[in-house]
Amino acid sequence: MISMVAGSLIFGIGAHQAKTERWRTLFTLNFFICLIAAGLYLAMGLGLGFRTIYDRPTFWVRYLTWFCSTPLLLLDLALLGRTSRLTTAHLIGANAYMIITGFVAAINPKPMNQIWYLVSCGAFLAVLYLLVQPYRREAIQKHPRSKQVFTKLLIAHIVLWSLYPVVWILAATGLGVLSQAGETMSYTLLDIASKVGFGFLSLSSLRQLEQAEVPGVRSY
Amino acid sequence: MISMVAGSLIFGIGAHQAKTERWRTLFTLNFFICLIAAGLYLAMGLGLGFRTIYDRPTFWVRYLTWFCSTPLLLLDLALLGRTSRLTTAHLIGANAYMIITGFVAAINPKPMNQIWYLVSCGAFLAVLYLLVQPYRREAIQKHPRSKQVFTKLLIAHIVLWSLYPVVWILAATGLGVLSQAGETMSYTLLDIASKVGFGFLSLSSLRQLEQAEVPGVRSY
Amino acid sequence: MISMVAGSLIFGIGAHQAKTERWRTLFTLNFFICLIAAGLYLAMGLGLGFRTIYDRPTFWVRYLTWFCSTPLLLLDLALLGRTSRLTTAHLIGANAYMIITGFVAAINPKPMNQIWYLVSCGAFLAVLYLLVQPYRREAIQKHPRSKQVFTKLLIAHIVLWSLYPVVWILAATGLGVLSQAGETMSYTLLDIASKVGFGFLSLSSLRQLEQAEVPGVRSY
Repeated sequence: MISMVAGSLIFGIGAHQAKTERWRTLFTLNFFICLIAAGLYLAMGLGLGFRTIYDRPTFWVRYLTWFCSTPLLLLDLALLGRTSRLTTAHLIGANAYMIITGFVAAINPKPMNQIWYLVSCGAFLAVLYLLVQPYRREAIQKHPRSKQVFTKLLIAHIVLWSLYPVVWILAATGLGVLSQAGETMSYTLLDIASKVGFGFLSLSSLRQLEQAEVPGVRSY
Repeated sequence: MISMVAGSLIFGIGAHQAKTERWRTLFTLNFFICLIAAGLYLAMGLGLGFRTIYDRPTFWVRYLTWFCSTPLLLLDLALLGRTSRLTTAHLIGANAYMIITGFVAAINPKPMNQIWYLVSCGAFLAVLYLLVQPYRREAIQKHPRSKQVFTKLLIAHIVLWSLYPVVWILAATGLGVLSQAGETMSYTLLDIASKVGFGFLSLSSLRQLEQAEVPGVRSY
Repeated sequence: MISMVAGSLIFGIGAHQAKTERWRTLFTLNFFICLIAAGLYLAMGLGLGFRTIYDRPTFWVRYLTWFCSTPLLLLDLALLGRTSRLTTAHLIGANAYMIITGFVAAINPKPMNQIWYLVSCGAFLAVLYLLVQPYRREAIQKHPRSKQVFTKLLIAHIVLWSLYPVVWILAATGLGVLSQAGETMSYTLLDIASKVGFGFLSLSSLRQLEQAEVPGVRSY
């Protein structure tokens, strides 16, 4: 919660002082991502958005906030990579499908939730494919000197996002290996890493991109 | 369900192999339309999204998925007709109003639901007007040699969409002439025709449009 | 209710007869704003969207319709001011945050709802800041002769929107000074003023803007 508010503040001040449109947009996106997460943790701290569903204590409100914040994270990536509108729309569509079916998985009894979990994982694979193939190709084509920046960015993104379904399958929603406290802590750490941490990574990536690409060569 | 998954697969592979931006967008739209419907039928097959509301067994989840898939269908049409953003926004707004008030009609007791049904039909008439007047005018203006293509497309679209409120008024939600099995089957057939079928029609329309309009004359 | 339908009709006819794209967009936005509000009052008149939450009779449906209509009102302003897409997105994001946290405040018991009320007020302050600073700066920069038009527009907007949280804090949701009938009447009058009234103000503002700015000097 505190780290999310701190993240919001830092990115908000950054947005205010940003000099170019692109920097301001990036700061603003990160600001809203942290702000949405701050709202989530405020709600969870007050005991809201919580229900015991089929013997599993479930913070269903997570899915609601993920539904709002994950498209903004993808817009972060799209902004850095100057991604085409079609690929961006495709990414956001697959992502929405993933979150919604994941939510359906979370609120349904076993073994039916396993079916939805697999559907949601299918959508996640689609997101991964879109990132590794069209997204990466477009980004490198438009920033030919910054291959490494996008490799680092995508690895961070993919590793962090891949851990969510791992936590899901280990927690009470799946195999039940992870205790409820462990589940909550895992998701919280992942949220901090993939929102505040990834936000800072996106800023340093943009700086590297601007240094690498000589202004006259930029494709915009 | 199977036809929706098959439709998703065909349109998804098509999107992957499409050569121009316009074709890829069209395939992608149809892909998501079928994918959303596949999610709906998976949910319905698992007995989800169902509730007996005021003695009427209601799959309320239909309205949720229609809310997501119908704007994509309208985007299909807008893409084919190179429709202006304003007309597209107007269509999507009227369509959203139609689905939401239709949903309110479905979950309310008689005779109150009749009021909402009429409001929803009013919004449907607005959609029809927008299609037959500004949409058609713009489409023909931008594709002067393809009047017939749009006439066929609009007739198919309007006939299919007009059958939904007819099923609604015949089923338990209205006069109660149609049994529950009949209602489910009617909606399912309509969904297949208006999603998979209409998807293929949109593809053949785009082919005809590209053949009819000489490249140099295109208005984009 | 009747005033909302009347407003819809007037703005709808206006949209139909509008000559330029900008006028048509403005009429269309106002049309949908009134139409959404008409749907709200129809629902409330039929006793829908109402629930007694923690001893407070609450029309939660208000928040749902505000969530749809307030972004359109901000688009009105953005259209008049030729606001940049980033500022518009920022405004709509802050506004959505305000409505959602306000909704959470409305459906939670005291004293927890006070926390959410403060969060929502914080988002409202962000909206105000965005309007008074970046929005106003951009609008005047693009319409250097029409400073007064925007001053009037912003004062009307800010005064009307500021009264909503005042009613909230006076009603059963806050201090409980206002009776339920008083609350309903206050919100209804505010809705008429800020939707139908503001709609007409936006039209007269656009007329003044077009008269003030000599065509050749316009920045579009």
